Amino acid sequence: MASEQLPETDLTRHRRLREQGSLDRADLEAILDAGFVCHLGVVVEGRPLVVPTVYGRDERQLYLHGSVASRSLAGGTPVCVTVTHVDGLVLARSVFEHGVNYRSAMIHGEARKVTDPQEKLAGLRLLTEHATPGQWTYARQPSRKELAATTLLALRLDEASVKIRTGAPDDGDGPDAELGLWAGVLPLTSAWGTPVPDPSLPLETPVPPHIARREGTRHG
Amino acid sequence: MASEQLPETDLTRHRRLREQGSLDRADLEAILDAGFVCHLGVVVEGRPLVVPTVYGRDERQLYLHGSVASRSLAGGTPVCVTVTHVDGLVLARSVFEHGVNYRSAMIHGEARKVTDPQEKLAGLRLLTEHATPGQWTYARQPSRKELAATTLLALRLDEASVKIRTGAPDDGDGPDAELGLWAGVLPLTSAWGTPVPDPSLPLETPVPPHIARREGTRHG
Repeated sequence: MASEQLPETDLTRHRRLREQGSLDRADLEAILDAGFVCHLGVVVEGRPLVVPTVYGRDERQLYLHGSVASRSLAGGTPVCVTVTHVDGLVLARSVFEHGVNYRSAMIHGEARKVTDPQEKLAGLRLLTEHATPGQWTYARQPSRKELAATTLLALRLDEASVKIRTGAPDDGDGPDAELGLWAGVLPLTSAWGTPVPDPSLPLETPVPPHIARREGTRHG
Repeated sequence: MASEQLPETDLTRHRRLREQGSLDRADLEAILDAGFVCHLGVVVEGRPLVVPTVYGRDERQLYLHGSVASRSLAGGTPVCVTVTHVDGLVLARSVFEHGVNYRSAMIHGEARKVTDPQEKLAGLRLLTEHATPGQWTYARQPSRKELAATTLLALRLDEASVKIRTGAPDDGDGPDAELGLWAGVLPLTSAWGTPVPDPSLPLETPVPPHIARREGTRHG
């Protein structure tokens, strides 16, 4: 079965470093699922604003936690959401060939403020479970008042572009290979640490398994 | 000696979660120095575009590697550059109080394409040394032709806002503390791994000390 392809549009066409571009929807989903913080770009009075925020997703939509940017989001405001994982430094023989191994997804669309309480609850659940699987049922879920005080944005996963770079530097078969310099990749990895209990917690409170089991696992 | 303060402007004033806002220039510099990848926001035909790229800095300017966004940057185009470090998940008793421990800097200004070859060389050096200290003198430096083929942007560090969240969840002294749930922080850390040699490298090529010594050190 052929994997689903993302549509190539004026916004998603890869113009530069085309060999790093992907239109495979599975790549998009893998990048989204590997992280939980994105950078949300909006235009406010003609100026760009780039704000980090948390997200979750279902098959067709991204849900974003409302932020300072939400103030500026009337219905149909264009946004760009970018998720980037940095996998390492590409250390070539020449400075010119230096680069970064990374996986990045850029989603274009119009953000919609979620107003329906049922959809808002479902979206918050996706967002919570995306960052911390198991936490939605463990923690106290939002009251009606809390739900009303939460801003949640939805963005369709229709128009997206993906860029991925992996592997060694590109100057191993050129004249610079004769320089005798070391070249390769310095990997960067992100991992979950030991849970730090809230100091106000009674000492005997156990770390629940869905949190404890993440310790030492890789993120990104 | 009082530390230098960042100016409070319409763009940098903290409107939301003010207690997380900082106007301390030392905080801005520490956040910039802890990373090497930023998210650059520009407006292209009225739509936001958020692109990851690498940066370096001196006392007064950020230097950014040219990217797909550079095509759209005429002189005086407003940009927003955001650098974010995610330090952990804040796991509260209630979903509503969940959050992220993070350090984020947002710089507003007008990006300038660096055209003077001397400044470009100096900027690339800052950028290279920022990501990999020691690499500028180790690797082959750019030729005149390579320098001409490189796009470098400069952005003054004049207008910036910083947000930092640290520590435990905020609902340890409220009614939810009675729920008996575990609460705290699940830390996330990023670290450099073992250098991976380019497969085309002669086996005896030693990893230079300035790269080898980063293995196992923390990033971010």
